[in-house]
Amino acid sequence: MNAILTQLSNPVAEHLNDVIQAFDAELESDQPFVRELCGRVRAYRGKMLRPMLLLLSARACGGVRREHIVLAAVTEIVHLATLVHDDVLDDADIRRGGATINRLHGNEAAVLLGDYLISHAYHLCSSIESQHAARRIAATTNVVCEGELMQVANRGNWSLGEDEYFEIIRRKTAALTSVCCELGAYFADAPPDRVEQLAAYGSDLGIAFQIVDDLLDLTSTESETGKSLGRDADLGKLTLPMIQFLRRSPEAVQGQTVQALAAGRFRPADVNGHAGLFAECVEYAGGMARSYVQSAMARLADLPASDARDALSSAAEFVVQRRS
Amino acid sequence: MNAILTQLSNPVAEHLNDVIQAFDAELESDQPFVRELCGRVRAYRGKMLRPMLLLLSARACGGVRREHIVLAAVTEIVHLATLVHDDVLDDADIRRGGATINRLHGNEAAVLLGDYLISHAYHLCSSIESQHAARRIAATTNVVCEGELMQVANRGNWSLGEDEYFEIIRRKTAALTSVCCELGAYFADAPPDRVEQLAAYGSDLGIAFQIVDDLLDLTSTESETGKSLGRDADLGKLTLPMIQFLRRSPEAVQGQTVQALAAGRFRPADVNGHAGLFAECVEYAGGMARSYVQSAMARLADLPASDARDALSSAAEFVVQRRS
Repeated sequence: MNAILTQLSNPVAEHLNDVIQAFDAELESDQPFVRELCGRVRAYRGKMLRPMLLLLSARACGGVRREHIVLAAVTEIVHLATLVHDDVLDDADIRRGGATINRLHGNEAAVLLGDYLISHAYHLCSSIESQHAARRIAATTNVVCEGELMQVANRGNWSLGEDEYFEIIRRKTAALTSVCCELGAYFADAPPDRVEQLAAYGSDLGIAFQIVDDLLDLTSTESETGKSLGRDADLGKLTLPMIQFLRRSPEAVQGQTVQALAAGRFRPADVNGHAGLFAECVEYAGGMARSYVQSAMARLADLPASDARDALSSAAEFVVQRRS
Repeated sequence: MNAILTQLSNPVAEHLNDVIQAFDAELESDQPFVRELCGRVRAYRGKMLRPMLLLLSARACGGVRREHIVLAAVTEIVHLATLVHDDVLDDADIRRGGATINRLHGNEAAVLLGDYLISHAYHLCSSIESQHAARRIAATTNVVCEGELMQVANRGNWSLGEDEYFEIIRRKTAALTSVCCELGAYFADAPPDRVEQLAAYGSDLGIAFQIVDDLLDLTSTESETGKSLGRDADLGKLTLPMIQFLRRSPEAVQGQTVQALAAGRFRPADVNGHAGLFAECVEYAGGMARSYVQSAMARLADLPASDARDALSSAAEFVVQRRS
């Protein structure tokens, strides 16, 4: 998978090293324990999807500047902070094929490391002369936290609706991918309507990404994704295929499924007798993801032809094709 | 206690309501669960010590401006975020006489609420035109997180030295009180050496404050402080009196004490036979706190006489006299 992303990031490959340098420089510490934790977090920095989206958006709208390098590192640090705290919330054991921070060093260290990362993200962001980025990044993290809080508030809510699901993922995931593309365009001096278009592209892509992430949690294997799976249902989080399954299945099956969910022992294999319906619901969610990808690609139509525009278009396709 | 602080804040009383308004406006949300959590956190906003220090420093250096109101709210939100996460780390049950967020709504909600608060603190901070505040606040929260991480890294380190203890509290507590006073002076257009003096005053006061906080954890009662106590030792955190006690007591007593600490069952009452020595160590810590207070007050000597300067001086004294 990373091979595809590496190829997509070709148009901005020269800048990605600068992003990594900015990232590493910001997280340097005189404290050995802090250095050890940050070293572990560096291994999470696999896909670099958000920096790539930001840099490609910049290039598609004119060109990459110093601000873009800094902001690409900022968005990656924000993203890693959310992963570290997510692993605490989900009590996850593995991430990218290795032990999570919480498993290795306890929840205390993981909570504080997340705080340390988010603080450094804002610190790095404040190095830019313009206040605009700081305002947009902080407004975005406000929304991300709200999305996460909405998700926690709806744990064990087996009647969660599709609209609420989309509102949660729009906030917790799509807000950050959206602001990446928006700031890429903004700091390339793109006109306001183009900035908006790229923000909308990033939002659509983020929604598709999260739908697929939720699908993989239900249908993939740990060896494929390198992280703990099947946890959404155990943690009381309903995702799109399950919302559909509960809505479409006969009343008795609904009752059994909710019982299994509430007991934290629902497994997709349990739907025997209704495997066809379950597969339909999985397909429905996949179709939703594809429609968001179509929408994302359409947002790029007015951009002048460039290698960066093509890569953004392929990135949207990649999001639904990935298996991890 | 709050009565004394209310009196000390008289010179800036008219501005404290504006701070509360800025605080409340920033934390408004369309989500009922978020509103509920923030409502609970508002009850933590008791002493408003940091806003008071910031506003008094501003007034002592010239006068209170719009930036000071915003920054006073920012520092209080940062402080509350650290309390919410601290209660998760310490598995604390009560705070200000009520149940903690983690006890009421679980660790997940408490971790996310802390994140939500810190995000809003930076968001509010980015509303100021100058980047200076954002840089200083983010640099400070970097240091605060490092201090907290150092503390976690030293849990169960029964040979923690006094220098390390002071380095931890300088970072986790004094950095924030210091930046409050610094920014109060800075945005009142005080000359650089005065800004530095006030930063040093705030640092000394913060160190004294934390020494006393740690003392109260060991010697006070929950009904006096309204929060969970005796937890430092249980959580493997050595504080100043214990560092002294372990250093000064005979070897056999050291061994017994470390055993009790390691088993999480050390109680001050256990030192019978060495109660005199223990009292000396408590007194030693109190003396240290008083010497930092003296130092803090000396930093104010060059300020022109004013009600605000007098209040800052009294605030330093208050820090060591408080019983909660």
